[in-house]
Amino acid sequence: LMEDIHYTSRWGTGEKWGEKPTETGVSRLALSDADKEARDWFIHATEALGCHVTIDEMGNIFAVRPGVKNDKPPTFVGSHLDTQPSGGRYDGILGVCAGVEMLKVLADNWVETEYPVGVVNWTNEEGARFPISMMSSGVWAGYIPLDTAHNAKEVHPGTTTMGAELKRIGYMGKMPCSHESMPMAAHFELHIEQGPLLEMSNKKIGVVTGVQAYKWLQVTVKGRETHTGTTDLKSRADALLTAAKMILHSHKLATANNALASTGILHLKPGSTNTVPGEVTFTLDIRAQSDEAVARMEHLINHDFHKIASGENVGGLNPGCPLDALNTGCTPGLPCTVTIKEFFKSPATNFNPLCIDAVNRAAHSVLGPDSQDLVMEMTSGAGHDSVYTNKRCPTSMIFVPCREGVSHNPAEFCKDEDCALGAQVLLQSVLRFDRM
Amino acid sequence: LMEDIHYTSRWGTGEKWGEKPTETGVSRLALSDADKEARDWFIHATEALGCHVTIDEMGNIFAVRPGVKNDKPPTFVGSHLDTQPSGGRYDGILGVCAGVEMLKVLADNWVETEYPVGVVNWTNEEGARFPISMMSSGVWAGYIPLDTAHNAKEVHPGTTTMGAELKRIGYMGKMPCSHESMPMAAHFELHIEQGPLLEMSNKKIGVVTGVQAYKWLQVTVKGRETHTGTTDLKSRADALLTAAKMILHSHKLATANNALASTGILHLKPGSTNTVPGEVTFTLDIRAQSDEAVARMEHLINHDFHKIASGENVGGLNPGCPLDALNTGCTPGLPCTVTIKEFFKSPATNFNPLCIDAVNRAAHSVLGPDSQDLVMEMTSGAGHDSVYTNKRCPTSMIFVPCREGVSHNPAEFCKDEDCALGAQVLLQSVLRFDRM
Ligand SMILES: NC(=O)NCCC(=O)O
Ligand SMILES: NC(=O)NCCC(=O)O
Repeated sequence: LMEDIHYTSRWGTGEKWGEKPTETGVSRLALSDADKEARDWFIHATEALGCHVTIDEMGNIFAVRPGVKNDKPPTFVGSHLDTQPSGGRYDGILGVCAGVEMLKVLADNWVETEYPVGVVNWTNEEGARFPISMMSSGVWAGYIPLDTAHNAKEVHPGTTTMGAELKRIGYMGKMPCSHESMPMAAHFELHIEQGPLLEMSNKKIGVVTGVQAYKWLQVTVKGRETHTGTTDLKSRADALLTAAKMILHSHKLATANNALASTGILHLKPGSTNTVPGEVTFTLDIRAQSDEAVARMEHLINHDFHKIASGENVGGLNPGCPLDALNTGCTPGLPCTVTIKEFFKSPATNFNPLCIDAVNRAAHSVLGPDSQDLVMEMTSGAGHDSVYTNKRCPTSMIFVPCREGVSHNPAEFCKDEDCALGAQVLLQSVLRFDRM
Repeated sequence: LMEDIHYTSRWGTGEKWGEKPTETGVSRLALSDADKEARDWFIHATEALGCHVTIDEMGNIFAVRPGVKNDKPPTFVGSHLDTQPSGGRYDGILGVCAGVEMLKVLADNWVETEYPVGVVNWTNEEGARFPISMMSSGVWAGYIPLDTAHNAKEVHPGTTTMGAELKRIGYMGKMPCSHESMPMAAHFELHIEQGPLLEMSNKKIGVVTGVQAYKWLQVTVKGRETHTGTTDLKSRADALLTAAKMILHSHKLATANNALASTGILHLKPGSTNTVPGEVTFTLDIRAQSDEAVARMEHLINHDFHKIASGENVGGLNPGCPLDALNTGCTPGLPCTVTIKEFFKSPATNFNPLCIDAVNRAAHSVLGPDSQDLVMEMTSGAGHDSVYTNKRCPTSMIFVPCREGVSHNPAEFCKDEDCALGAQVLLQSVLRFDRM
């Protein structure tokens, strides 16, 4: 398992963070040349283990190993081989490699399953290059239209689309991307936690019961381009200053509402040292345990951002201005305008009780006598392809701890032992489900 | 004059802001293909008017018209043909075209000057593409090393340098860029005010006595890339949130210190919707009337930005945290680090009394009986090539009003009448100086 994880990191080797040769991140955006090579490896590895491989029109790759009976859909293990721009070696990769490892263990031990089992590599889970996360499991589940996905544009100034890149690297398959063309009996996913809870509480396995809700907004602030040296503060409609207030305020709202709010992308125009920015576009990723809490955050953001743009002193953001009143006599500047557009949402998810139970039993069986202290139920802060498979087939997930909870970072790290435990729990979960 | 202004805007035609064909901006970054064409036009136009043209190794173009005697340096008119990324039709262009107009008027009227007169087009005055403003007059004056200028990198991710671009468009001349190779008797510059003071007080001509001080800083904030969905607010070192606080705080410091502080460029890494930015770099353009005031601003920025990065609640930027204390028990997040680097500075400038006097007399003579109400002395908020020529020869400037004081904007606008009045004052200033 660890050999595969480290071997495949040659495709998109990222930033070095330690001395050992394995201590670098992975930089493998979806449908890049590096992603193509990792995909080629996946097909080669699973075919060598006796799988039949199918690629759908979103580039999802399904490797299926026949069972004793083959008149029912396979039980799948799945995750993704794409990474963040400067991601680590485990996020997604652990899940796919653990699937390949499962196939090896089954082969080495001459295990025949009741029904087929499969491993799937989902395309563009990260939403880092084409800004819809869990994109291709979303299409498979019928929740994201194929056209929307194919026409999705790269997040960074560039003009290429998902569809064009699928064709370019030769991964636009013929099979329709749909749960009808490729049905699943169940979907299990092993993943690093990406947060600190398991590590902090000295647990080895997280039995994931669901995923929090989230929504991605694009905020565009329009002001007026003017000269930085000749325009007094009162005469500016400074789109960046206004965006800075919004970013700060969203953080304050998240703090007050037990939610998260984060800006990961920000572009401004025209981008010159001595011109006050006339337009700023930024993303806002808001998350909370319930759909209601995300809706409340969105409402507050909409309400307050319009006030901030118009120059009101929301939350005391305008120094020297009276609170929550239109600021005449102080220096908030001229009004800007703001538009807020949702570009992705994922409601709160509850996984399937049968699958959760299979994972729970597998975890206790793998960890043995001390398992009571080593397993915990938890929800996921991050989205995963399992969110979408859960809409079409019984699904659940297995978490293993990662160092300091750090993910989406080259230094993301999961101990060999923990990867192995997770893979073991994954294998047993699949076998338990197969028998059920 | 207006024909030249509008004709030359074909090279780098910018954003449309009105219905008339002349109502677009100009987008002509230094040493772009469009800039090359505007340069070719300038050489052609001045040679046709009997000038001898020389190009130095910074691409500055000097067009000289012989005088009766030619044993003393020419009196120059100068400005620049480069623009902001989305600039207007007047900033710089008015000054160069008024110089060409002066040559036409002298030719049409068979005027012989005592000594030679010249027109210079300075390279990369804006500092928009290669981030040093007044760059090539700075090299000419011996204040910016030639190597620094040639090696200056494009501001936007790109790898090309000033030197490479000078060669590419064929404008790296043979003459050394120096006030010794191309001495000037004086330098006069006509420019739109770029601020609102003339318009607000119904004046026609600003006699510019000096230029305020400014400094350009590059601020780099380093935090930690982490997942936006799994990292609670307390566990983040969010480089963008920290930068937002700094931008807001710099505005507050400027307000309190009668100075300006502006951020025109901001880049972040890695740039993914669901990754907390690990690194943000932004520019800070600070200006004030005196060098001391700029130094004070810089001191405060240095002092407070380090506190903000470390998580202190400077100016109440951390909601819910005690003021000006390390924030334990609230959610400022983990500390970031900050480094601040100066990349350009221009101390306060006082123009030459003889030149100021020549402009003053010319303005009153051009404006006639009502001139008392139509002329005012003022300092410039923006830097100009005259700042550097002033270090090596008598220099001053003429301002004309522009609509609402808006500049560095496609909609920058100066009335035909005001352009003409400015050109007239420029011509007379040169002739007066020539006689002196
Ligand atoms: N696991 C993971 O990093 N998924 C990306 C989708 C998200 O932003 O939560
Ligand atoms: N005039 C003008 O826009 N110059 C650019 C230099 C500055 O930033 O002041």
